[in-house]
Amino acid sequence: MEKYIGIQLDKNSPQHLYMQLFQKIRQLIMDGKLKEKDKLPPIRQLANMLGVNTSTIVNAYGLLEKEGFVYKKIGSGTFVSERHDNDLSDILLQKYPLDEDIRLMDRGQIQIKENMISFASATPTTDLFPVEDFKILLNEVLDRDKGDAFGYQESQGYFPLREALVNYLAQSNIQTKTENIQIISGAQQGIDVISKAFVDYNDTIIVESPTYTGAIGTFKSRGAKIVSVPILKDGIDIELLEESIKLYKPKLVYLMPNFQNPTGYSYSREKKMKIIELAKKYNLLIVEDDYLSDLSFYRDDHATLKSIDEIGSVIYIKSFSKIFMPGLRLGFLVLPKKIHHKILAAKHTSDISTSGLNQRVFDLYLKKGIWKNHIQYMEKIYKERFDIMKKCIEKYFTQTGIDYSFPQGGLNFWFSLPEGYDANKLYVEAAKNNILILPGSIFFTCQNESRCFRLSIASVYPKDIEIGIRKLSQVIEKFIKKDTDKRKGADPYTPLL
Amino acid sequence: MEKYIGIQLDKNSPQHLYMQLFQKIRQLIMDGKLKEKDKLPPIRQLANMLGVNTSTIVNAYGLLEKEGFVYKKIGSGTFVSERHDNDLSDILLQKYPLDEDIRLMDRGQIQIKENMISFASATPTTDLFPVEDFKILLNEVLDRDKGDAFGYQESQGYFPLREALVNYLAQSNIQTKTENIQIISGAQQGIDVISKAFVDYNDTIIVESPTYTGAIGTFKSRGAKIVSVPILKDGIDIELLEESIKLYKPKLVYLMPNFQNPTGYSYSREKKMKIIELAKKYNLLIVEDDYLSDLSFYRDDHATLKSIDEIGSVIYIKSFSKIFMPGLRLGFLVLPKKIHHKILAAKHTSDISTSGLNQRVFDLYLKKGIWKNHIQYMEKIYKERFDIMKKCIEKYFTQTGIDYSFPQGGLNFWFSLPEGYDANKLYVEAAKNNILILPGSIFFTCQNESRCFRLSIASVYPKDIEIGIRKLSQVIEKFIKKDTDKRKGADPYTPLL
Repeated sequence: MEKYIGIQLDKNSPQHLYMQLFQKIRQLIMDGKLKEKDKLPPIRQLANMLGVNTSTIVNAYGLLEKEGFVYKKIGSGTFVSERHDNDLSDILLQKYPLDEDIRLMDRGQIQIKENMISFASATPTTDLFPVEDFKILLNEVLDRDKGDAFGYQESQGYFPLREALVNYLAQSNIQTKTENIQIISGAQQGIDVISKAFVDYNDTIIVESPTYTGAIGTFKSRGAKIVSVPILKDGIDIELLEESIKLYKPKLVYLMPNFQNPTGYSYSREKKMKIIELAKKYNLLIVEDDYLSDLSFYRDDHATLKSIDEIGSVIYIKSFSKIFMPGLRLGFLVLPKKIHHKILAAKHTSDISTSGLNQRVFDLYLKKGIWKNHIQYMEKIYKERFDIMKKCIEKYFTQTGIDYSFPQGGLNFWFSLPEGYDANKLYVEAAKNNILILPGSIFFTCQNESRCFRLSIASVYPKDIEIGIRKLSQVIEKFIKKDTDKRKGADPYTPLL
Repeated sequence: MEKYIGIQLDKNSPQHLYMQLFQKIRQLIMDGKLKEKDKLPPIRQLANMLGVNTSTIVNAYGLLEKEGFVYKKIGSGTFVSERHDNDLSDILLQKYPLDEDIRLMDRGQIQIKENMISFASATPTTDLFPVEDFKILLNEVLDRDKGDAFGYQESQGYFPLREALVNYLAQSNIQTKTENIQIISGAQQGIDVISKAFVDYNDTIIVESPTYTGAIGTFKSRGAKIVSVPILKDGIDIELLEESIKLYKPKLVYLMPNFQNPTGYSYSREKKMKIIELAKKYNLLIVEDDYLSDLSFYRDDHATLKSIDEIGSVIYIKSFSKIFMPGLRLGFLVLPKKIHHKILAAKHTSDISTSGLNQRVFDLYLKKGIWKNHIQYMEKIYKERFDIMKKCIEKYFTQTGIDYSFPQGGLNFWFSLPEGYDANKLYVEAAKNNILILPGSIFFTCQNESRCFRLSIASVYPKDIEIGIRKLSQVIEKFIKKDTDKRKGADPYTPLL
């Protein structure tokens, strides 16, 4: 029974208890903690231990059986199944082996346990979502448009929404027209659609190093060669960038000039101007991924490249996942003139169009001014966390010997361990102490180790920030000490309580 | 003013009148019917002619100006702008020229005017959408799940929905598990994701000829070579298929075994079994696109390949766009075992996940049995149209000399003109008479002409079917006669009234 003691079910979750239990037992099987032919506990016994009805156990076991994880033997109980996997799938797998991307992604997917403090996720917690407002507008759209809200939409996007976005953009000094706006199902699709339109097999793409994992995955899936240019505290290394451009003649240059992911660094005004100059000089197509410029707490100049792009060399990607609701899958592109047909074709072959209902609701959001209120609300929430985070880092991290510099906005903080230390290992030690961090290695294109790591404030409540940072500082101190001790042959490390 | 006489605004449309007017004048400019420096009519005069308020005209002109289509000269009126397009975009366009796909797509996009009878669209009219049911379930989900409905979802799909789909599939004799189901944002994304996972530059894909335009576009965007094998009235030409497999060693074989698009043909049981045999013999991965097997009016055996696939060689794509609401962008894949990680990575780089809200609503649809009622309703509606269509074709088309065979279900009918006639030209003549058909050429991979065309009943009301088919038969008779006359040097053709 000791394997089952760790199982905790959350009665307040919208997910059924039996489903929670199913998932936890499935995890035990998949992790190898329960092995073939192991017997599951008797129903009544497990129900008593977990404090639930026997029907919860019966349903969970039933689902496990249906999914092939367990089998029943009448009169003697329920047992973990053998896995039968010896059919054509094996041959297919040899023919189409899993590649790097998946290992990369697996490392990005972090199992969140109860009581963990997660600095790993850059996604807002769901309690920050303006569900009630959204519901009112959703019903308004349904009453107004009826079936039209569910027909195929223009691939380029719902026209009134594009109109509303033209006005919205004018407020951030981006002057454009509806014909240059392309609605997308989230920023990830934006990167994908741009790649389809402009990147062929063996083309080169220049990215910042480190950079957003999802972009690397998409570029690789087009068979592109990826060239990384380091990002410094005031933006990408411009000299190296120009050299790389001359050497590799890239099809695209993918940049995040404000509060870069994962570093939080922002480009200086000079570097932004220089990027536009380079674009002109070498006829470059720049992809600007703007996922956070709205959250500029201590920086006056968070101009986008697009706003200073007078020659039409920047494709601007706007995501709302971090400041609105990621599950909506909604964002947009601002395109240089004339290339929208090419993007439109790529969008069409990707998913034809983005959900019309969500587009219509978002249109009302912008037009009724609710959007502005929401952004102000999110700014307030995040700024509070940002300020607490800064204080805690100053208080607890200065002694640890790790390196960092504070961003002037956004959600991410970036740290380096002293030379010779691998943040992948720190990630494991921190997780043992119920703290989730994101190891830097996943943000590099061809590096399995890194002494960097990212902490994000998007999904940590203010009260947990201090607890989390204090504990993490202890983990880091022990981690560095442990490594030193190891060299002497000792291993005194035990999880902190 | 004669250019404006054709403009009709629909006061019952949910779209604002000024927006309608804006779009129509913009179209006149884009079509070259209004030229640079042409003056737009005075506001009051146009308002009188169209029977609307002057504010409608003022707003439409204002939007045209904002979008750069017109400019105002104080005291003298509003004029059509020059188009300034001489910046970097021109260079970009030279660097990244528009390709075949776009021309293909442009031809697929058909401008629907008022009073047109459209046999072109295979999409249901929006009045058939179960908006009221959907709205109730949507509100139920929002009240139950709140913010959770808008967070990032599992990339593989909302677990309870995958569970519901396992049960749904069991009813069509497809036995699977939740781990083998991948939720997608519509069938088009399914094709895209499968391509990303399995198709590299220069790989070969075998398709039926003719086949679905959207699939061709996606395969081309991966740099794949496409090999077409003709489809016969009982399914693909099996001998040619086997020869092609031996010759080209395809990465994928893309098939629609039931009510194929565009032909409406279905595979015989023998051919279905043979496909599975070939898959086993050559270790093939078969992609089965099932967009219509639900609408089997006169066919007992509409088994899917997946239901007879015992060796795990079929990826099954299920779309609901034709029988539910296309704007939802929701469908799913059933995968052979073990390859779901590869598909999952491709899905992740495409759009991370499908809208969680729509997934949750659809889950309730299935679990509450509302889905079953809806499908029965759609079957009834479509069967009525199908029967009327058959009767009308028999009544009016037998004299015209065109060839066809009736499908046993689905929405599409496929016709061939006599040898030497091009359906692209018939398409133009039919459109002049307010009848929309789809010329066959868009369904072939490398053919600009075809004597075939497709008629679909999805968006034609029963009362219009007879009117439309009668008129089309007259167009066809004249078209064939015209062509014969042309050879004699005459051109007596004028639009039928």
